[in-house]
Amino acid sequence: MMAAKADPVDILRTLIRCPSVTPEEGGALACLEALLGAAGFVVHRVKLTGPDTPDVENLYARFGTKGPNLCFAGHTDVVPPGDLTHWRFPPFEGAIHGGLIYGRGAVDMKGGVAAFIAAGLDFANAHGKAGDGALPGSISFLITGDEEGPAINGTEKLLRWLADRDERIDHCVLGEPSSRAVLGDMVKIGRRGSLSGTLTVHGKQGHVGYPHLAENPISGMVKLLAALTAEPLDSGTAHFQASNLEVVSVDVGNPAFNVIPAEARARFNIRFNDLWTPATLSAEIERRLNAAAGNGVRFSLAFEARSSDSFLTAPGEFVDLVTQSITATTGRTPELSTTGGTSDARFIKDYCPVVEFGLVGTTMHAVDESTPVDEVEALTRVYAGIIERYFAAFGR
Amino acid sequence: MMAAKADPVDILRTLIRCPSVTPEEGGALACLEALLGAAGFVVHRVKLTGPDTPDVENLYARFGTKGPNLCFAGHTDVVPPGDLTHWRFPPFEGAIHGGLIYGRGAVDMKGGVAAFIAAGLDFANAHGKAGDGALPGSISFLITGDEEGPAINGTEKLLRWLADRDERIDHCVLGEPSSRAVLGDMVKIGRRGSLSGTLTVHGKQGHVGYPHLAENPISGMVKLLAALTAEPLDSGTAHFQASNLEVVSVDVGNPAFNVIPAEARARFNIRFNDLWTPATLSAEIERRLNAAAGNGVRFSLAFEARSSDSFLTAPGEFVDLVTQSITATTGRTPELSTTGGTSDARFIKDYCPVVEFGLVGTTMHAVDESTPVDEVEALTRVYAGIIERYFAAFGR
Ligand SMILES: [Zn+2]
Ligand SMILES: [Zn+2]
Repeated sequence: MMAAKADPVDILRTLIRCPSVTPEEGGALACLEALLGAAGFVVHRVKLTGPDTPDVENLYARFGTKGPNLCFAGHTDVVPPGDLTHWRFPPFEGAIHGGLIYGRGAVDMKGGVAAFIAAGLDFANAHGKAGDGALPGSISFLITGDEEGPAINGTEKLLRWLADRDERIDHCVLGEPSSRAVLGDMVKIGRRGSLSGTLTVHGKQGHVGYPHLAENPISGMVKLLAALTAEPLDSGTAHFQASNLEVVSVDVGNPAFNVIPAEARARFNIRFNDLWTPATLSAEIERRLNAAAGNGVRFSLAFEARSSDSFLTAPGEFVDLVTQSITATTGRTPELSTTGGTSDARFIKDYCPVVEFGLVGTTMHAVDESTPVDEVEALTRVYAGIIERYFAAFGR
Repeated sequence: MMAAKADPVDILRTLIRCPSVTPEEGGALACLEALLGAAGFVVHRVKLTGPDTPDVENLYARFGTKGPNLCFAGHTDVVPPGDLTHWRFPPFEGAIHGGLIYGRGAVDMKGGVAAFIAAGLDFANAHGKAGDGALPGSISFLITGDEEGPAINGTEKLLRWLADRDERIDHCVLGEPSSRAVLGDMVKIGRRGSLSGTLTVHGKQGHVGYPHLAENPISGMVKLLAALTAEPLDSGTAHFQASNLEVVSVDVGNPAFNVIPAEARARFNIRFNDLWTPATLSAEIERRLNAAAGNGVRFSLAFEARSSDSFLTAPGEFVDLVTQSITATTGRTPELSTTGGTSDARFIKDYCPVVEFGLVGTTMHAVDESTPVDEVEALTRVYAGIIERYFAAFGR
């Protein structure tokens, strides 16, 4: 007897009811463990820990032992719901109204998780009785509970944990909400890198009435910030937008109108393309600052330790089968994009090719986060299509 | 029998022992009241009050009833001593060591107060028995306890209190520490005006990964601040330095590296000369900002209510007799200056000509504030010389 098709909407509503605000597991991984274990997946619950960060629960599950191993990655943790009274429906209830499922995480990204879990359960149920030898390869799920938080005890460490056990992933689909206006309009085949830094300009405190005895660090800061943003870093590449620097804060904190302050601080972030690495980019920033500072401005510059490189999964067989699956279900030809913020793909790309495809992200992190029911169902068909095409192309 | 000469060093040490940190009277005015009352001065203790500010005690004393009335002005309040363990001698003890008197207020400005009180007591003791008709005029003391604080319940209101009583002051010597390196090297015959304001640049919050959906107010702020300081306001006048604008703080307060903030704020202060009034200057600032902002930068601008105009007591008979008294005692020809911060002279100048002369200010507001004993004694002789020359020139 064939098992009934898995229902992604049921799974999504169950997941939304788990209040898994980072770093709480909230029952979400326990729910997935039960579903996957019953379908014959080997499930690992992996608690990852580190100094100064909360312990986080993660999950890795695999069906089949042969390669190639197609992995779906995602997270069940969500950002806090904020003021509950602003929500039309309670954020951890999974209410359905007017064709939409409401709840924190509906699009980011319990919706994506529910869809690929449903597709994976259907695959396992279809092949489960046949025995491992008859499988074309394996499918697996890599689910973290630390994507919205510090992302220290999540995907990055879980991938290392797998590598330490010689567990190999061959290709990965990350189910983050990649669609822009409607399901299928965009796939992410890479991401820009991210580099953050703090610029401090050192002056000499004094009284505004005697400026010649002081040295105003704000004049120097204005000069350096102007120089930092005077010339674009580049004009983009084949698959990437131009690199972009944003100064996100300037802070002096001087409460007095009659005091010239001793120091001014600015913080900036750069999203950069494949023309740069964190090393070449920080050198360029330092070069621009030194040129503008001359002998007149004393500054120090510190970069944040956790920068991320840009990456690209170049168009080819794997990207093609993903876009074909999208087109087959939605009728749309997705734009191949590398825009937006960072995601856990920045860790996965060190192990295997990765693309990102999921729901429309418009309401993510917002009040009344919600997704159309039929897009969750369509996304499940897209993921099923990816599995089918993947093994047709790469299976043994 | 002639009374013994008043000892300014004794008076200074007594005043230092009064812990009169603004707004505390600390016994300082009570001490002056006793000394002046005993010498025949009519003494008024004036408590001034206002909403949202502490009540402050002030003092006005006059010897003689005829005009002209030569007034010595000053303050007995002091700034806090800070960390007591950093002081070589306790700040409220008046220790003498190596020819220096140590203590909070020694130069700013209990030293000046002690010197002109001693000179005034000597004048009263010399003329006291003669009867009012034989006096060439009057001398008076205007002493506030609110110069280092908000300066709301001090000199400004005390002058209005006097005017309301038809009490007329003809010329004023303010005893603030005007000397730069050695007693007598500088007299202040005016002060620049002061105007403070806050510039807010309005942007649109967003994620650094999607800068086209946001509007970074810091880019606009850098542009506006550069424009504000690109051209000097002027190049100075006969008696004044060039006007000068200092940006004293820039604040955004954004803790996140991945968020473009909604707003940036900068605070500035302008010290300006007699080419400007607060009205013409704020118009010029607005003009510069509008020109730089164009249609690209949205900003708002607010000026602080308490601006002060510049003022000048033009060189002439009164300034001359002050400088002659300084030269007679110290052998130095003082520079006639309008430099430095504001003082209560900004209020006095609305009632009569005012010049500022006092001790060397180097240690004011600092740990181990101190003044040479012999400069306190020399300053007393300068003030006595001013009284003598004043009545020779203006007395009846
Ligand atoms: Zn997410
Ligand atoms: Zn003072």
